Amino acid sequence: MAATEETLRKTLAEKLSAVEIQANTVRSLKSSSASKPDIDAAVQALNNLKLEKSSIEKSLQSLLSGSDSREAFRQSVNNTLERRLFYIPSFKIYRGVAGFYDYGPPGCAVKSNVLAFWRQHFVLEENMLEVDCPSVTPEVVLKASGHVEKFTDLMVKDEKTGTCYRADHLLKDYCNEKLQKDLTLSSDKAAELKHVLAMLDDFSSQELGAKIKEYGITAPETKNPLSDPYPFNLMFQTSIGPSGLAPGFMRPETAQGIFVNFKDLYYYNGNKLPFAAAQIGQAFRNEISPRQGLLRVREFTLAEIEHFVDPEDKSHPKYAEVADLEFFMFPREEQMTGQSAKRIRLGDAVSKGIVNNETLGYFIGRVYLFLTRLGIDKDRLRFRQHLANEMAHYAADCWDAEIECSYGWIECVGIADRSAYDLRAHSEKSGTLLVAQEKFSEPKEVEKLVINPIKKELGLAFKGNQKKVVEALEAMNEKEALDMKAALDSKGEVEFEVCTLGKTVTINKNMVTIHKEIKKEHQRVFTPSVIEPSFGIGRIIYCLYEHTFYTRSSKAGDEQLNVFRFPSLVAPIKCTVFPLVQNQKYEDVAKLISKSLTAAGISHKIDITGTSIGKRYARTDELGVPFAVTVDSTTSVTIRERDSKDQVRVDVEKAASVIREVSEGHRTWEDVWSTFPHHSSTTAED
Amino acid sequence: MAATEETLRKTLAEKLSAVEIQANTVRSLKSSSASKPDIDAAVQALNNLKLEKSSIEKSLQSLLSGSDSREAFRQSVNNTLERRLFYIPSFKIYRGVAGFYDYGPPGCAVKSNVLAFWRQHFVLEENMLEVDCPSVTPEVVLKASGHVEKFTDLMVKDEKTGTCYRADHLLKDYCNEKLQKDLTLSSDKAAELKHVLAMLDDFSSQELGAKIKEYGITAPETKNPLSDPYPFNLMFQTSIGPSGLAPGFMRPETAQGIFVNFKDLYYYNGNKLPFAAAQIGQAFRNEISPRQGLLRVREFTLAEIEHFVDPEDKSHPKYAEVADLEFFMFPREEQMTGQSAKRIRLGDAVSKGIVNNETLGYFIGRVYLFLTRLGIDKDRLRFRQHLANEMAHYAADCWDAEIECSYGWIECVGIADRSAYDLRAHSEKSGTLLVAQEKFSEPKEVEKLVINPIKKELGLAFKGNQKKVVEALEAMNEKEALDMKAALDSKGEVEFEVCTLGKTVTINKNMVTIHKEIKKEHQRVFTPSVIEPSFGIGRIIYCLYEHTFYTRSSKAGDEQLNVFRFPSLVAPIKCTVFPLVQNQKYEDVAKLISKSLTAAGISHKIDITGTSIGKRYARTDELGVPFAVTVDSTTSVTIRERDSKDQVRVDVEKAASVIREVSEGHRTWEDVWSTFPHHSSTTAED
Repeated sequence: MAATEETLRKTLAEKLSAVEIQANTVRSLKSSSASKPDIDAAVQALNNLKLEKSSIEKSLQSLLSGSDSREAFRQSVNNTLERRLFYIPSFKIYRGVAGFYDYGPPGCAVKSNVLAFWRQHFVLEENMLEVDCPSVTPEVVLKASGHVEKFTDLMVKDEKTGTCYRADHLLKDYCNEKLQKDLTLSSDKAAELKHVLAMLDDFSSQELGAKIKEYGITAPETKNPLSDPYPFNLMFQTSIGPSGLAPGFMRPETAQGIFVNFKDLYYYNGNKLPFAAAQIGQAFRNEISPRQGLLRVREFTLAEIEHFVDPEDKSHPKYAEVADLEFFMFPREEQMTGQSAKRIRLGDAVSKGIVNNETLGYFIGRVYLFLTRLGIDKDRLRFRQHLANEMAHYAADCWDAEIECSYGWIECVGIADRSAYDLRAHSEKSGTLLVAQEKFSEPKEVEKLVINPIKKELGLAFKGNQKKVVEALEAMNEKEALDMKAALDSKGEVEFEVCTLGKTVTINKNMVTIHKEIKKEHQRVFTPSVIEPSFGIGRIIYCLYEHTFYTRSSKAGDEQLNVFRFPSLVAPIKCTVFPLVQNQKYEDVAKLISKSLTAAGISHKIDITGTSIGKRYARTDELGVPFAVTVDSTTSVTIRERDSKDQVRVDVEKAASVIREVSEGHRTWEDVWSTFPHHSSTTAED
Repeated sequence: MAATEETLRKTLAEKLSAVEIQANTVRSLKSSSASKPDIDAAVQALNNLKLEKSSIEKSLQSLLSGSDSREAFRQSVNNTLERRLFYIPSFKIYRGVAGFYDYGPPGCAVKSNVLAFWRQHFVLEENMLEVDCPSVTPEVVLKASGHVEKFTDLMVKDEKTGTCYRADHLLKDYCNEKLQKDLTLSSDKAAELKHVLAMLDDFSSQELGAKIKEYGITAPETKNPLSDPYPFNLMFQTSIGPSGLAPGFMRPETAQGIFVNFKDLYYYNGNKLPFAAAQIGQAFRNEISPRQGLLRVREFTLAEIEHFVDPEDKSHPKYAEVADLEFFMFPREEQMTGQSAKRIRLGDAVSKGIVNNETLGYFIGRVYLFLTRLGIDKDRLRFRQHLANEMAHYAADCWDAEIECSYGWIECVGIADRSAYDLRAHSEKSGTLLVAQEKFSEPKEVEKLVINPIKKELGLAFKGNQKKVVEALEAMNEKEALDMKAALDSKGEVEFEVCTLGKTVTINKNMVTIHKEIKKEHQRVFTPSVIEPSFGIGRIIYCLYEHTFYTRSSKAGDEQLNVFRFPSLVAPIKCTVFPLVQNQKYEDVAKLISKSLTAAGISHKIDITGTSIGKRYARTDELGVPFAVTVDSTTSVTIRERDSKDQVRVDVEKAASVIREVSEGHRTWEDVWSTFPHHSSTTAED
């Protein structure tokens, strides 16, 4: 595609100069009073050139704005979502606040289904220890984690109005705008801007500032000059208690609540590794200027797992259950060499060392299963490995589950091997050791170096300085001590620098003995590694909306109807119950079925308005309700499946249990379809 | 009890003076060198009086500190809760922050079960519209709701150190301390202090300050003087976005998120009343100095319902389902006349007007069912009506579900008829009408007053001022207009003040006609009333812990074992699976059962440590696990019920489904007990 773009730009440039030359020709013919046919022919040629030029412009524009159809699709999904109250801009009657959204009734049900499945799939299946910690967090915890210092974005201010912008966003907008709309851009310049876009995340404050100056970027609304970029901490700050002296923050992630409880959780798990703790809860990020609608918000639900494991043994007992899964992975190597994501068998990725270890691989596999069971399209899901420059220095390996939607590839789950970083940081700052012990079944013999200063000799030689010399000898590391031993053995004496004395002294072989000893050890004490899968629930849900949305024509063909093909697992309501026509007997049957569904805990809606059955189906399709029961007799009813629009006829007393089985996944629709008589109704859909 | 206390205080006072008199007698006998037998007899009498005095002191003390045993009980519940990680003081390794607690694994499971049941019992059964709004809330919303101005507690400061205290707490502590420990307190003074305790919540800032001065109350630790009381806003404040110009707060309740969405939710419900919206989420309260452990925290989970209803029709279609419930109610009348709570049939309370309306009554009944099904003791639960001075001026009626625990009677659910207050406040401040319409099936005839100024006459009389006079005439309210009509009819003219002219003019009967007209109206527009049940989830859970906790002797009688008798519905884990002895075949059976339980979604724990079966039972009893499967053969296993310790023998392949049925409430333990062979094991318990 890049090649086509370059070709088009070149052709366009050639055509532009051809137009200019021909225009000059026309002008000179006119001024030299040439013959009318000559002038007409030249004008005709000029017009042809202009038509060619504008046709090339159109091609280039449509190439550059391939985003048009994506945006139209997004608009149509979002219109449906907002109209049916899947979400509502928060505080809407007060004109809202950027970056805050409410989940309305169906959105809230979808979210609660996604979280319930998360609990089942991760917490229950893996026997994880779930905890629930406050959002308000004292400064000391977030200083230890590094958030107070480093959880920042670079910001610029309109120098006159004080309005704030994210520096990288302004530069990105500038580049994209130029690339998409400036058709006269040279291909060199286009390549430069593309390079800037690629490097944007790595730019320092200085580099960002320099580019903004170089391109003459100004404040978008006012065109005022901008300040230099400076860091803005993204945590919402507050104050705990009335004194004003105890700063606190709204947590930017839930993970820290687990780390600070490691000691208790390890004890709860019988002092055994590995184990995982999990937490679902709100996290907060005071974005400078939130964009991308539901994907970049200031308050969101995270579901995080911290799996603690012995750094010397990152195998996983259930690894074999996921090793044969095959899906799109995008390893570092492929990214660096300009290739694209490819389907890889997870087991191969682990055995080839592309994925660092079995436990990390196990979680990648479980995340894949989780997302696809929710209804995420497996062909628009990839696991992308972080490049070396994206990862924190302490991380062993890191993969993002990225889902493609109209905004591009969106990071929805991060799966990182964070090594011992977090537990070490909290051990150090809190003074509480956050470590694990491996008790040896029998004591292990370990070779230890023993340095034994002979105080009497040292006292005679160094008098008042004896103590400092002893301390310096004892403080030698293994290599220094072995070097000294070799020198004493061969030469009988050695020069030795004593920092605390600021001078070198002579040590002879009577003054110190250095030897190796075999010691017995009963346990190994170590800081566990942590493997962290972290789920952005709101982002997953938004991508799910896009992946499950489609439109189809109404039977009359005069309307496009919206459908969400949610799996029953996540559908906000599992079933609707309608009487076919307004009729007391049918209503009674509908209420009876509704009562059984309530008792079985199946969320449903009963609709006894007089609306036409076709309209009622269309309404529930738009909410993604998978099944509809229509009462058209007092003995049997029809059950309709949303996507196929197929209907079967089922006895009244069996209806609720069939709906229960099929919506809880104990039975497939195919099975229902092959068991019960089919029902076809020409009137049903319209 | 009050009478006994008074009697004891009087007797003690008499005894104290008797001791003093006798001591003087002894002293004078000694100084007058009386005979030894006389002195001895007097000393003996003194000692007897002293003994009597200290016996009365003891009685009084034990009367006053009936709290001793309650505190011992609380200590033992809390020790178990903290040791088994039901909760953990947050940020413990950094020495914690008052008012913040984490839910550890079993506590988190209990909470998630309570919330799931809440969703089933309220949202699903009542078809409520659940929403999920952010915690961060812009100032404008909380100004409209009144929280910015009024959500405050009165605070005093240590004038030297600046340490802050809740003014009412200090006064309360002073009174309680005096009443409990000062045995010389006169009964008048005791009565005064009790009156202060009773009035505490109604004291103004000035009254509190005056009492603190009068009693000479100082800062508890330093004994420094205290500042005058002043209000402290209890909301955690923050700033939205980077400008620092958009103040926000962490929401003090979830309700406002529902009110601001009323218009959309009403539309979603097909523009029909009544309907209810619900929300579960975090709320925040920056307490001045939190006490009462888990009951008064700075961040907590609320579950709130806003039921919108036509103020002219507060009947409820499902009211009959709860009318026959009978439980402890504590109406205003009983509180004012010093009586205690009494068992009342809910239907009688509503029909007698004790409870304001059917809908309020319906929710009181549903809350009763919710709490008792969770395991709250119905004899330690009462519904207390707010006294007139406790209710907001706009509230029609308000009842608290109070649960008795070691801290006394604790408000856990508030059920208030808040009338139209909240919707009106947001309508006014946002400029968006939050109203409902009742469309009449046929137009209604309504009598309306019509004021018709005769512009020609008015123009002649008032020239340039005509317009202002017309406006003033049209702006008259009904009474003013009718008064004018009466005056014009009788006297032919009337003096009329026109504010906009700043003077009075004379209006005669030619200048205006005023008459009543019958008009047809097609709908009624009104602001709905809202009935709000609001649940403090953490408080309910804490009371549940106390109500379900008991101890029993170990079989050997050498130990007290702790048990939580959680209903299966809320138990953190439904079942444990143990092999009786370490043995590969038994372990395989245990794993098989565990797999079936996982597939059925039954939370359980498999324990293959070699610990004695008695210890394993004791451990799980302490977590409130209702059932235990012990594998003692490869064909059948035993299932033990926690509270009865009864065991039945069940085939291996049936075990998981029996556990499922009994833990999901589809089958009672009595039924299981009568179906399967009983198992008795003398070795099992120890």
